[in-house]
Amino acid sequence: MRVPVTRVSLDDSPSGPNEPVTLYRTAGPGSDPTTGLPPLRAEWIAGRGDVETYPGRDRDLYDDGRAAVRRGGASEEWAGARREPLRAREGRTVTQMYYARQGVVTPEMRFVALREGCDVELVRSEVAAGRAIIPVNVNHPESEPMIIGRAFHVKVNANIGNSAVTSSIREEVAKLEWATRWGADTVMDLSTGDDIHTTREWILRNSPVPIGTVPIYQALEKVGGDHQALTWEVFRDTVVEQCEQGVDYMTIHAGVLLRHVPLTADRVTGIVSRGGSIIAGWCLGHHRENFLYEHFDELCEIFARYDVAFSLGDGLRPGSLADANDAAQFAELDTLAELTRRAWEYDVQVMVEGPGHVPFHLVRENVERQQELCDGAPFYTLGPLVTDIAPGYDHITSAIGATEIARYGTAMLCYVTPKEHLGLPDRDDVKTGVITYKIAAHAADVAKGHPGARDRDDALSKARFEFRWRDQFALSLDPATAEAFHDETLPAEPAKTAHFCSMCGPKFCSMRISQDIRDAYGDAGEQERIARDGMAAKSEEFVRLGGTVYLPDPTVPAR
Amino acid sequence: MRVPVTRVSLDDSPSGPNEPVTLYRTAGPGSDPTTGLPPLRAEWIAGRGDVETYPGRDRDLYDDGRAAVRRGGASEEWAGARREPLRAREGRTVTQMYYARQGVVTPEMRFVALREGCDVELVRSEVAAGRAIIPVNVNHPESEPMIIGRAFHVKVNANIGNSAVTSSIREEVAKLEWATRWGADTVMDLSTGDDIHTTREWILRNSPVPIGTVPIYQALEKVGGDHQALTWEVFRDTVVEQCEQGVDYMTIHAGVLLRHVPLTADRVTGIVSRGGSIIAGWCLGHHRENFLYEHFDELCEIFARYDVAFSLGDGLRPGSLADANDAAQFAELDTLAELTRRAWEYDVQVMVEGPGHVPFHLVRENVERQQELCDGAPFYTLGPLVTDIAPGYDHITSAIGATEIARYGTAMLCYVTPKEHLGLPDRDDVKTGVITYKIAAHAADVAKGHPGARDRDDALSKARFEFRWRDQFALSLDPATAEAFHDETLPAEPAKTAHFCSMCGPKFCSMRISQDIRDAYGDAGEQERIARDGMAAKSEEFVRLGGTVYLPDPTVPAR
Repeated sequence: MRVPVTRVSLDDSPSGPNEPVTLYRTAGPGSDPTTGLPPLRAEWIAGRGDVETYPGRDRDLYDDGRAAVRRGGASEEWAGARREPLRAREGRTVTQMYYARQGVVTPEMRFVALREGCDVELVRSEVAAGRAIIPVNVNHPESEPMIIGRAFHVKVNANIGNSAVTSSIREEVAKLEWATRWGADTVMDLSTGDDIHTTREWILRNSPVPIGTVPIYQALEKVGGDHQALTWEVFRDTVVEQCEQGVDYMTIHAGVLLRHVPLTADRVTGIVSRGGSIIAGWCLGHHRENFLYEHFDELCEIFARYDVAFSLGDGLRPGSLADANDAAQFAELDTLAELTRRAWEYDVQVMVEGPGHVPFHLVRENVERQQELCDGAPFYTLGPLVTDIAPGYDHITSAIGATEIARYGTAMLCYVTPKEHLGLPDRDDVKTGVITYKIAAHAADVAKGHPGARDRDDALSKARFEFRWRDQFALSLDPATAEAFHDETLPAEPAKTAHFCSMCGPKFCSMRISQDIRDAYGDAGEQERIARDGMAAKSEEFVRLGGTVYLPDPTVPAR
Repeated sequence: MRVPVTRVSLDDSPSGPNEPVTLYRTAGPGSDPTTGLPPLRAEWIAGRGDVETYPGRDRDLYDDGRAAVRRGGASEEWAGARREPLRAREGRTVTQMYYARQGVVTPEMRFVALREGCDVELVRSEVAAGRAIIPVNVNHPESEPMIIGRAFHVKVNANIGNSAVTSSIREEVAKLEWATRWGADTVMDLSTGDDIHTTREWILRNSPVPIGTVPIYQALEKVGGDHQALTWEVFRDTVVEQCEQGVDYMTIHAGVLLRHVPLTADRVTGIVSRGGSIIAGWCLGHHRENFLYEHFDELCEIFARYDVAFSLGDGLRPGSLADANDAAQFAELDTLAELTRRAWEYDVQVMVEGPGHVPFHLVRENVERQQELCDGAPFYTLGPLVTDIAPGYDHITSAIGATEIARYGTAMLCYVTPKEHLGLPDRDDVKTGVITYKIAAHAADVAKGHPGARDRDDALSKARFEFRWRDQFALSLDPATAEAFHDETLPAEPAKTAHFCSMCGPKFCSMRISQDIRDAYGDAGEQERIARDGMAAKSEEFVRLGGTVYLPDPTVPAR
């Protein structure tokens, strides 16, 4: 079995050669977007003998919105291969959790263990216990399996998707490729406007990472945007449509109960989750319980036939510091814990979504409470932002909270881009968001003491100390930007190997002086060690004697 | 007494008018850079009757480097007013710490208390105890007093300064203005190249905030860049030169002792502080103790005559995660604690510098250890960066560590710009660095529960919830960027008051739905409260009865 990695070859150090550094890689094999990726997992899925093909739902132009009905199709139809959908044979369950609980090690688990550099039994046992998920819809064979759980590397999700106001199908596919190139571990397609079905088809066929969605957005489109007109039937139809396309996990706001909604009335920012507010509006408009909660078992039965994972939505997450950790938020979390256990009865994989906007000192409570209540089900949080005063910089305000929450056990972080609260992210924003979150995830891995997490830091720092600029760039999260910044002040090619940089200039470089010190007194070999220890003894003696000698006849060559 | 503030007037809410929000302001009164700022504090200083004017050091063209000697002056001479320097009369001490310990409340303390919105006795007692400093050289009367201490708002320092490779005097003055405009509380001039004296003169005469320096950089210039040629005499002369100009605090690497240096030999990145490596190189080259340590009492005597504060440099701070919290770093900290107490014997104000590069889980130990060892002297840290793998994004890697370290008591954060490790910051980098650090400082204030810290968050969140876009921009750390991002997708003027934004589009806005819910069931007035409680009772009863009713005849208007 082969897994994707990026291998970085390094130049030699003065002390000898450096081992190449192997980095986790999410970018996939690459392909022409109009034909899609090869179905890596097709044989694994078929090989288990527990799925069947079936005709699937009929094409319905309404799936792409009213504009598609008018023009007789999406604005750009998917022209690549169309496979008949798969589902579990009647009475079978095809989830990784089911297999894991049966003691079966799947190729997906082996793939994941190789990527993570861990024992496959850790993967199987964590999935079996519900503490990790491998989101792999049988209808998304293009994806390279990955795992979300606190025992593994912290993961990053990037949101893309068009809206009623802006953007095209091709742009969204380009954002997908861009996000995975910079390290997004999963991507959520949050499209809400026209072409919603076809955009998703393009994305799934081209995605090497799991794709998540929020099906209520499309269900709402189907009822003309009137949330009071939503029904379980429309929602169920939408979920099946997306299961057949291959969506790997879906955000389901089943925890927004009728009795929770009044708890939000005195909040500074009410309900800020789109899904949450749609459901809350529906509940109150109908004076009825949330139909997602009422039909949760039916959802479990559907998800079990495709291996779709729940991402239990936190529809009542706080939208401002003032609303953090309040009664509404924690009441919903109690319900999400109940739903987690219910899904596990069906062997359906579950993660639980978390906030949002939370003051820094209250962040930790969120993950510890979720982990306790939900028996260790993976936590998947949006930031959280630790202040509300920096629109335009919320990738930063949220990366601070994200590092803290991941340190204490959050398994996946949903990125926030600089455009949060202000507009739709463009290509640059997607990149900035992903890299910012790779920083948070990695810093948390290091803080958790995850095995090998610090190797990349150490390799880069060593390269920095030795002025191996090329290696320093190559080991960076964003080599192009690092190199461009360096070149702004020192563009010449020789400066790439120069033993100084523009901060201090050639005369003044602390790294160089430091290297001189090491050359003179430090470093490995026995001779140097003796010299150094002798030095230390001498200096200690010097201090003990209280000597105050200094240069008796200072030479000031420059003046 | 009047103190500078920014007052933000807000539009009315549906529920009534909003009080204006008052923000701390660092930008100063503004002026023509060629004439400088008015000497706000001149009368206060003179009024105490404990200073004298004197001719000061002679102009020496070498102060500006060899190029100035060649051309007969700096590249652009300071043409504004030149005052004779002040110093304490013989036998007097003119530090704010001295006054505070005598029980004297100075105008500087009153000014600070007004800015902080706290009792002046808190200011006096914290300064007297050494837990806070007010850096105010008697020769920098242009500055608006501010305080650095854990009982007050967390402060942010911005570094500027030319280097041997690049930049001009005017550019540095423009960076100063730019940095304080975005909220820098102090600015350090780290110039190392030509025009070093004159650049500092321009900066001081135009700075409304305290200016810090690292005098060894200039001392090294004076000896032609050869650190082995440094002497106490050259260093002392440089310190006096800078005291006379008005530098408010100076980084002094007196904690780099000869016996500490060998502790760095096995580090991944050795000594990364420029000052630290210069001193370490000198110590080893001469086999002598650090002359700054040896002459520390003399420095205290000098500083006491001008009220210059020590910023005790952490010359052995870690330059990589691998070197964090190691023997070298903590050995130096022990020495800095000893020096803190020695300075206090002279009533000289002190803060202590801290790292650097530190894994997230080891950050807290740094500040707690420093606070304990140094009896609460203000801690002033550079980040720390919580990972080494993101050159080009180190404003972010370090803001994460900065928030954590400030939460536990660091009083001032030295910013890091995106160019860290790669090049000299330009104007945009300075802005990005300052704003990123305002985020960290503010998030820490909120986390510490600093009185009133969250008011700005709450006001902005309320504006956001009510679609008062103009107010949201005005309350932001960077109004122009917030507005520009908003306008990218919704540029029309009416969109500034539109009850939706481009993320969701008009049909789909969770804020709007949420407002509808509040209008129907929530919010202030008694009537609504009754309605809501009734609603809650009804929904609870509904759940208790286990009702599963949902829409019997769904209407799907769109299809």
